[in-house]
Amino acid sequence: MAAHILGEPGPAQRRAVAKAITLVESTRADHRAQADALLTQLLPHTGRSFRLGISGVPGVGKSTFIEALGLFLIAQGHRVAVLAVDPSSTVSGGSILGDKTRMEQLSVHERAYIRPSPSAGNLGGVAEKTREALLLCEAAGHDVVIVETVGVGQSETAVAGMTDMFVLMQLPNAGDDLQAIKKGVMELADLVLINKVDIDADAATRAQAQITSALRLFTQHGRGQPGEAVWRPQVLTLSALQGQGLQAFWDTVASFRASQEASGRLQSRRRQQSLAWMWERIESGLRHEFREQPAVRALLPQLSEAVAAGRLPASTAARQLLAARHTPLSQEPGPAAG
Amino acid sequence: MAAHILGEPGPAQRRAVAKAITLVESTRADHRAQADALLTQLLPHTGRSFRLGISGVPGVGKSTFIEALGLFLIAQGHRVAVLAVDPSSTVSGGSILGDKTRMEQLSVHERAYIRPSPSAGNLGGVAEKTREALLLCEAAGHDVVIVETVGVGQSETAVAGMTDMFVLMQLPNAGDDLQAIKKGVMELADLVLINKVDIDADAATRAQAQITSALRLFTQHGRGQPGEAVWRPQVLTLSALQGQGLQAFWDTVASFRASQEASGRLQSRRRQQSLAWMWERIESGLRHEFREQPAVRALLPQLSEAVAAGRLPASTAARQLLAARHTPLSQEPGPAAG
Repeated sequence: MAAHILGEPGPAQRRAVAKAITLVESTRADHRAQADALLTQLLPHTGRSFRLGISGVPGVGKSTFIEALGLFLIAQGHRVAVLAVDPSSTVSGGSILGDKTRMEQLSVHERAYIRPSPSAGNLGGVAEKTREALLLCEAAGHDVVIVETVGVGQSETAVAGMTDMFVLMQLPNAGDDLQAIKKGVMELADLVLINKVDIDADAATRAQAQITSALRLFTQHGRGQPGEAVWRPQVLTLSALQGQGLQAFWDTVASFRASQEASGRLQSRRRQQSLAWMWERIESGLRHEFREQPAVRALLPQLSEAVAAGRLPASTAARQLLAARHTPLSQEPGPAAG
Repeated sequence: MAAHILGEPGPAQRRAVAKAITLVESTRADHRAQADALLTQLLPHTGRSFRLGISGVPGVGKSTFIEALGLFLIAQGHRVAVLAVDPSSTVSGGSILGDKTRMEQLSVHERAYIRPSPSAGNLGGVAEKTREALLLCEAAGHDVVIVETVGVGQSETAVAGMTDMFVLMQLPNAGDDLQAIKKGVMELADLVLINKVDIDADAATRAQAQITSALRLFTQHGRGQPGEAVWRPQVLTLSALQGQGLQAFWDTVASFRASQEASGRLQSRRRQQSLAWMWERIESGLRHEFREQPAVRALLPQLSEAVAAGRLPASTAARQLLAARHTPLSQEPGPAAG
C-alpha cells in the first residue's frame, strides 16, 4: 500500500480516516467540494478489499458475530473496517454501532476501524455517505470492509448494492425465513447464516433445510448468465457467541470470492453498483432541484390537491409542473407583483 | 350518466371511446395537448366504476375467467370494460388481449369494451396510457373496469396502483405460491383466486390452506391503520372453465368494496394512487429531460465509463452532471467550435 494523504497504518492514520469520513458526511458545500476532491484523489487506492454486507433483524446477534469474525480475521493478518447503514439513526439518535461497548474488543483493536451509521436523514443520504466511507477505509488499507444493516425497510437493498457478498443472518425460527422471503431480502442473499445454533440445534437444522429448499427455487429461476458457473447461495449454521462455525463461514466466503473473481462477476457487479449509485444520486438531485424551483413551489400545493381530489388528471398535473419551470414566474400573482 | 362528448352507450360511443383511447396513446405533442384537454373535461364523469386488477402467470386461465366474469356481470346489468398492462407487448407484437378470439363472446358484446395493452415501450408509458384509458371507459359509463396483467416484471405493482382491488390468480400447485410471495406480489393481493379447481380439487384445497396461512403472516405485520376494520385477504377456489365459483367471487368483491367504502379506504387509496401517479410521471419526465440536455449528452458517456472503471466516484460524477446543465456549453470542444 503506497503512502498517500491518509498516511501509514497507525493512530495518525486512524485520525485522518475519521476526519475524512466526517468531511464526506458534512452537508456544507465547501466540505462537499473538498470531499469530492479527496475521493477522486484516493480512488486509485480503493477497490482492493473484500466488501461484505451483513443484515439481520435486531436480536439475531450481528454485533456478537461481527466482533468474533473481526477478531478471527485480525488474527489471520487482515485489517478490518466495520461500517453501518441505519436510516433510523436520525430518529433514534444513533442505534447500530453507535454504542461502542457493543464490540468491546474489536472497537479498541489497532487493526480494526469501526464507524457508526451516519445520520443523514434518509436512506439515500445514509447509503451515499457509507459508500464513501467504504472507499476511504479501503484507501487506508483495510482489506475486509464489513457493512452492517438492520433488517428494516430498504436498507438491505442499499447494502447489497455496495458490497461484493451479501449475508443474511437468521434465527433458528420457522416463520423468520418467510418474512425474509416476503420482503425480497432472501433473494439478495449470497449466503444465509443461521445463528444461535447453540440454543436449539434441532430447530437450526430444520431452518437450514427449509431455507435451502426455498433458495433452490429462486436459483432455478435464473441468477447469473447462461453458461456461467452459478454460485448457489449456501445456508450455514453458526454460534457467534461460542465462536463456533467461523472457519467454515470464512472458507465459504473465500470460495465465493474465488468463483466470482474467476467468472468476472465480482468486477461486473462493482461496475453495475457504481453506475446504479451514480443514477441514484442523479435522480435524487433532480427531485430535490425540482421541488426547490420557485414555479413548482408555487404550483405544487394546489395541483397536488386538485389531483388528490380528482379534479385534475395526474398526468396533466405532472406535465403542467414540468412545463411551469420553463416559463417566467412574473405572470403568477404573488406578494411582489400584487 | 349525463350525456357528454363521448355520447350515449351504443356503437357511436364505442367508436368515440376507441378514438379517444387512440388519442391518449399517441406520442404526438398536439395529440397529447388534445388528450390532456379531453381528460380534464371528462374527469368529473369518472371514478364511479369499481376498478378490479387481475394478475396471474400465463396459463393460469385469466382470459377464460375474465370472459366468464364479464358475461356474468353483464347478465346482472353491469357494463364491463377490460384493459391490459403488458410491457412486453412491444416486443411480442401484442400479447395479452391482442388476440380478440381469446374472449370470443365478451369481445363482441355491446355492453363490453375490450382494449389490448398499449405498446408504448416501457412499463411507465404502458401504465400511464392504461390509467388514462380507464378514465375514458369510466366516463363512457362502464361501471366495472377490469385491468389485466401477466405475472412478469413489475406490472403487478403498476396494476395494483391503479385499481381498487387486486386479485392474484394462482394454479393449484405447491411452489407457485412461493414464487408469488418471493416476488412481493402476494403482498399486493386483496384476494387470491385458485383457478382450475376442476383439474385437482385436493391440490386446490391444499394450496388454499397454504396461501391462507402465508397471508395471515403478512396481515399480522400491519396492513391498514390501527383501529380500522382491516380487510383480511381471502383465498377462494374457482373453475373459470366450468363457470363455478363466480357468484362467491363476486360476493366477496362486493363485501370488500363495501368495507373499503365504509372505512374511507377506497377514497384514500385512490387519492394516494393519483398522487403517486403524478410523481411517477414527474420523475420520468425529469429523467428524460436530463438525458436530453446537450451538456449531459456530451459528458455522460465519458463520465459513465470513468465511474464504471473506478476512476471517478459515482457521487462526484452525479454532481458534475447535475452542475454541467447550468454552465454554458461553449467551452466544450465540438464540431461547430472546432
